[in-house]
Amino acid sequence: MATVEWVGEGVKLIDQTRLPDEEVYVTCRSAAMVAKAIRNMVVRGAPAIGAAAGFGAVLALREPDPAAGLEALRGSRPTARDLFWAVDRVAAAVDPLAEAQAIARESVDACRRIGRLGAGLLKPRPRVITICNTGALATVDYGTALGVVRAAQEMGLEPSVLVMETRPRAQGARLTTWELAGLGIPFRLIADGAAGRAFQEGMVDVAIAGADRVAANGDTANKVGTYPLAVLARRHGVPFYVAAPSSTIDLDTPDGSGIVVEERPEAEVTTFAPPGTRAWNPAFDVTPAELITAVITELGVLRPDALLSLRPALTR
Amino acid sequence: MATVEWVGEGVKLIDQTRLPDEEVYVTCRSAAMVAKAIRNMVVRGAPAIGAAAGFGAVLALREPDPAAGLEALRGSRPTARDLFWAVDRVAAAVDPLAEAQAIARESVDACRRIGRLGAGLLKPRPRVITICNTGALATVDYGTALGVVRAAQEMGLEPSVLVMETRPRAQGARLTTWELAGLGIPFRLIADGAAGRAFQEGMVDVAIAGADRVAANGDTANKVGTYPLAVLARRHGVPFYVAAPSSTIDLDTPDGSGIVVEERPEAEVTTFAPPGTRAWNPAFDVTPAELITAVITELGVLRPDALLSLRPALTR
Repeated sequence: MATVEWVGEGVKLIDQTRLPDEEVYVTCRSAAMVAKAIRNMVVRGAPAIGAAAGFGAVLALREPDPAAGLEALRGSRPTARDLFWAVDRVAAAVDPLAEAQAIARESVDACRRIGRLGAGLLKPRPRVITICNTGALATVDYGTALGVVRAAQEMGLEPSVLVMETRPRAQGARLTTWELAGLGIPFRLIADGAAGRAFQEGMVDVAIAGADRVAANGDTANKVGTYPLAVLARRHGVPFYVAAPSSTIDLDTPDGSGIVVEERPEAEVTTFAPPGTRAWNPAFDVTPAELITAVITELGVLRPDALLSLRPALTR
Repeated sequence: MATVEWVGEGVKLIDQTRLPDEEVYVTCRSAAMVAKAIRNMVVRGAPAIGAAAGFGAVLALREPDPAAGLEALRGSRPTARDLFWAVDRVAAAVDPLAEAQAIARESVDACRRIGRLGAGLLKPRPRVITICNTGALATVDYGTALGVVRAAQEMGLEPSVLVMETRPRAQGARLTTWELAGLGIPFRLIADGAAGRAFQEGMVDVAIAGADRVAANGDTANKVGTYPLAVLARRHGVPFYVAAPSSTIDLDTPDGSGIVVEERPEAEVTTFAPPGTRAWNPAFDVTPAELITAVITELGVLRPDALLSLRPALTR
């Protein structure tokens, strides 16, 4: 299975809105199609969005109006930093396709390194709680927070996972369960509200989340529900890690107040509600740096207040 | 609409598993049928369970094996204190039906008084966040936490409500939205994980929850997800109230560690998950007294550490 793959005439994506029921692939042959796939969450997860947007920019640069295509990509979703980073990087490249391919390749390498570095923080038989999907489906391959779990398994640490359902789109219930089952890693699915009880019952050794954008001070936007998870972890003395490649780190945004949090359609929330019910659907929240034990990147494990030390590496 | 009503040959319940799609009533003509309706959540909400169990005990006492019927009722669900209280009260009564009727009648009076006392704690245009369903459907009529909102509306305070979906059974999305729409009280439905963002955005003036059992020290079992809500409220300096009739207060349980938290079927959680997914489904969590600003009962608004002062009133 490939989450994001260049196939000559365009970018091939596994349709994540139809998983786990069906494995359907779509090939986007225009920047507008890629933008639509990002907006509709056919592809989701910041690193996967970044890789798809990079290939989308390749398509845009081949179209009659490249600027329109690049704008469509930039306008598809506002929060994931990887999207803007990848579009800018490809748009500025001498060989756009080679650059987009490099982004995808580097993303896989980054995830594997994040996994190894993160697993090094864990004790044997770690009981991990996680939110949303941060596995191979959220990246080009391997995953970020789930990559840490995967690396822990490969290192013989025998991790187990409490998977938060992650309403409204249930990426935990639909995608993370599917990946963990495939990897043979033991897990239990819980309602999002049950995380508190899990901490109360002493069932959690470590919380690990992904990120959509990490500000320079360490404030981190991630799937809505991450902030309550971090608050619970702190209250119960459990470490809370953010696992994200450097492409998600935005040193030009000083803190979380500068991060745009997307509000998505009300209909995503009204699944069980009477017709006509009004909803409020912020897709993300911002976890303040003070609640984050460390940020696990491919460049190292950093305290959130040390992220600025990455500037030389990030502006090479 | 009547949530729980004695109809001569048995107790009539609105089937809450089928709301809001269908208004279907079932009449339980044996204690075993009432016990099954409680277990399957045809009737739910601690005060409503109490009233139904009271009538169920009337049926049990008319059956060839009263002890078996009473045991079935007591074994239907473990957490709501009202259930055991109502069964014991009816079983000890000279006139069981009159006693069960009194329980139902007193419950409505208690809810109206809880509403008035609670609304007195609110400022104009209060923006309330609440979890699960605590309205007329959770009681015999009027509601507990939602009764406070209803009284606030009747007093002209113009409340609005953020309704937490309350997975896995979505009582917020299915039932609270339905009740609030009927009452003309403005509200927005949110995913459970979005509560943190609502606090971050300054959208919440007060959090009000119901209860399934309040221990003598104020520790409170309520629908799973209540504890994370209370933790968030504390972090953001927002008052967190528990609204519950005295029938929910269990002075014989010293603290939350003595409260049995029901674990319900995994299938309630696996709605969106691949077949075979394993889940963990605690139906409740326990909010420690230190996070509770006050308990709003029909006997007064009390700090949780003052609940023992109710003992004379509760043992009359």
